[in-house]
Amino acid sequence: MKLLYAPASPFARKVRVTAHELNLLPHLELISTAVLPTEHNQQVSQLNPLGKIPVLFTDDGQTLYDSRVICAYLAEVAGNDSLYPRQAHWQHQTDIALADGLLDAALSLRYEQALRPQQHQWPAWIDGQQRKIDAALQTLAASPALQQEHLSAAQISIACALGYLDFRLPELDWRSAHPALATFQAAFGARPSMRSSIPE
Amino acid sequence: MKLLYAPASPFARKVRVTAHELNLLPHLELISTAVLPTEHNQQVSQLNPLGKIPVLFTDDGQTLYDSRVICAYLAEVAGNDSLYPRQAHWQHQTDIALADGLLDAALSLRYEQALRPQQHQWPAWIDGQQRKIDAALQTLAASPALQQEHLSAAQISIACALGYLDFRLPELDWRSAHPALATFQAAFGARPSMRSSIPE
Repeated sequence: MKLLYAPASPFARKVRVTAHELNLLPHLELISTAVLPTEHNQQVSQLNPLGKIPVLFTDDGQTLYDSRVICAYLAEVAGNDSLYPRQAHWQHQTDIALADGLLDAALSLRYEQALRPQQHQWPAWIDGQQRKIDAALQTLAASPALQQEHLSAAQISIACALGYLDFRLPELDWRSAHPALATFQAAFGARPSMRSSIPE
Repeated sequence: MKLLYAPASPFARKVRVTAHELNLLPHLELISTAVLPTEHNQQVSQLNPLGKIPVLFTDDGQTLYDSRVICAYLAEVAGNDSLYPRQAHWQHQTDIALADGLLDAALSLRYEQALRPQQHQWPAWIDGQQRKIDAALQTLAASPALQQEHLSAAQISIACALGYLDFRLPELDWRSAHPALATFQAAFGARPSMRSSIPE
């Protein structure tokens, strides 16, 4: 399998961590690229017209995205049935959607503040995304996913979302307001899959 | 079950169409609301910290989002196993992600052009989202999902995405460039589930 990714992409990190935890890394060729919403990337767009990463190219010729689809596919390939627990299945799926939504807001904030020229930045947009991030952290801090004994896809999603906040929005200082998340991340972040995928 | 939705929301329309097709509408109380990324909606944010709709509140007290999670949940509740076909399952999931991604780009374009004050609009952003929409339409026009004999979740996603383009971005005139999509939508749009959920 081939994975189109960027070292700094949090959605691609979810896939890399998942592949690592499923012992699939030896079967995964990593192809590094870079995408921005305002620039055309021919290599990525040929595979995913949305111009987004990650994109997985499977051994039997399928082109799969987005990260949620790829992670579930990898669990099936590995014959794993614990990453997506049947118990409280839909709450678990919602936790994944929440962590992904937090990342969407964080990326939107990052694009607004670091990519968009200053005269085109809109304070109301920044406030709105900030509000989503704060509220999402509040809800995730109370999620049963943090206490799950077995590794789950929601835990991976939450950890990669928090890792992105550390990487791009350290001024948010989410640990001070959410000690339960800080405790979770201290333990989860020590896993080899997380340590070997820290963005530079 | 209770669904928090807005008549104009394309992601909520996916859920309404899915519920209609699964004969679940009699069990679904629709609660209309309105959300904008720059405004706080207390009612929605209490249930979904991302402040987005649709949100489903189930009879056993679960709060579920996003639309992808809710639609899959409804199929399980209805005991339906054809909406998400096992054959070419991952390609089908990718088609859903593609239609959702097209909608994300269309909503981003809409927010940029209709919500953001003119002096803060950024032409490079508009061009980028436009490019994603054009490329997504090109790929969807060749998707096997259009020809599937049995109703599928991907078909619902594609039809609701095209419906949103008609509603908010009619100047795109996607039918001229993509006759295969126009043919699909002419037939699919005639379903009672689609006709009864047309945004006003």
